[in-house]
Amino acid sequence: ARMGRTLVELYYDVISPYSWLAFEVLCRYRHIWNIDLRFRPAFLGGIMQQTGNKPPAMLPKRGEYMLKDMKRMAKYYQVPVHMSADDFKRIMGTSSLTAMRFITAMDMTNPQYLEPLSREFWMRFWSQHEDISQPEDILAVARQAGVSAELSQKALEMISSPTVKDRLKETTAEALKHGAFGMPAVVAHYDGKPHLFFGSDRLELLGSVIGE
Amino acid sequence: ARMGRTLVELYYDVISPYSWLAFEVLCRYRHIWNIDLRFRPAFLGGIMQQTGNKPPAMLPKRGEYMLKDMKRMAKYYQVPVHMSADDFKRIMGTSSLTAMRFITAMDMTNPQYLEPLSREFWMRFWSQHEDISQPEDILAVARQAGVSAELSQKALEMISSPTVKDRLKETTAEALKHGAFGMPAVVAHYDGKPHLFFGSDRLELLGSVIGE
Repeated sequence: ARMGRTLVELYYDVISPYSWLAFEVLCRYRHIWNIDLRFRPAFLGGIMQQTGNKPPAMLPKRGEYMLKDMKRMAKYYQVPVHMSADDFKRIMGTSSLTAMRFITAMDMTNPQYLEPLSREFWMRFWSQHEDISQPEDILAVARQAGVSAELSQKALEMISSPTVKDRLKETTAEALKHGAFGMPAVVAHYDGKPHLFFGSDRLELLGSVIGE
Repeated sequence: ARMGRTLVELYYDVISPYSWLAFEVLCRYRHIWNIDLRFRPAFLGGIMQQTGNKPPAMLPKRGEYMLKDMKRMAKYYQVPVHMSADDFKRIMGTSSLTAMRFITAMDMTNPQYLEPLSREFWMRFWSQHEDISQPEDILAVARQAGVSAELSQKALEMISSPTVKDRLKETTAEALKHGAFGMPAVVAHYDGKPHLFFGSDRLELLGSVIGE
């Protein structure tokens, strides 16, 4: 981090809609707060499995509430998440592993695409309600993010390489090490150590503790 | 509710520390926002049992996080909650049923004490780390809240009456009907229907949707 600036890491998975909110809100604060924002694409499935956490919508009443909460939060933050009851089923039947590996490959080779690429994955899954698990979905998302066919193809070929797999595992392990049990997990480095803020609803608190 | 004012109900249990945050924050906003605030003492144990919800700290990583989150939130909102790892055990070994019945009895007979009495229960359990389950604890709390010995004794005698038990059950059932699966549960009445806001971290969102 540059002198006097707070390093803020956002651990996220594009399967997580609350991660999208945190992502967009931090992208806005980045220009206002004295922070260096670092995106850390990780695998939510791994975090849930390692910590024994379950998706909140597994509890029926919480699922009902999430639909209303997300509608209000999306409007409040002006992020076009459209969540319906069907999405709870859809999310259970989808794996974000290939998508997160693709994002990781892109982060390693052409990091300038990390932000638009991540955003377009959320857009496709949570706004347009289309699949993100197959190679053709992934290529469509990359095209939407302005990535050339050549670079996309190259990243797609990399997703089964140990380098990319290991990098995603390491990032996920780092999130766990910081105490994450779900996503988004925001880790702010101040007072000489990392501090975890879970969820999209502690960003004002984060601002307050880092003096913003 | 008075004309043009939004009725906001706070369903809470004094065993819930996040309920204390919501309680204090709403007590402050009450004077600034155009709302009528109504306190609805209910029984968290009943809500958890009916919905199948589990205390968040049952997940070890979430428990670790809660300690840090509560410390920061307490400081941010200037509410003297002091949570330690021991409190997770303490909360499992404590029932708030008698306390919530006592609060309910007071609400039915001398509602002017509802607010200070509730606050003193949180103060005793979450700030001073003392028990709130025995009659002597309850009388000490009531004294602290400025309730006379006579009125406290009367309320204590009422806690085993069907009237008080039923009233607490009804309030708990209403929270469930509004979709609560934990506490605090804030229900705001606007656009001709009730809207649930769960937790102490949606109060700014509530303000925004009711035009504050």
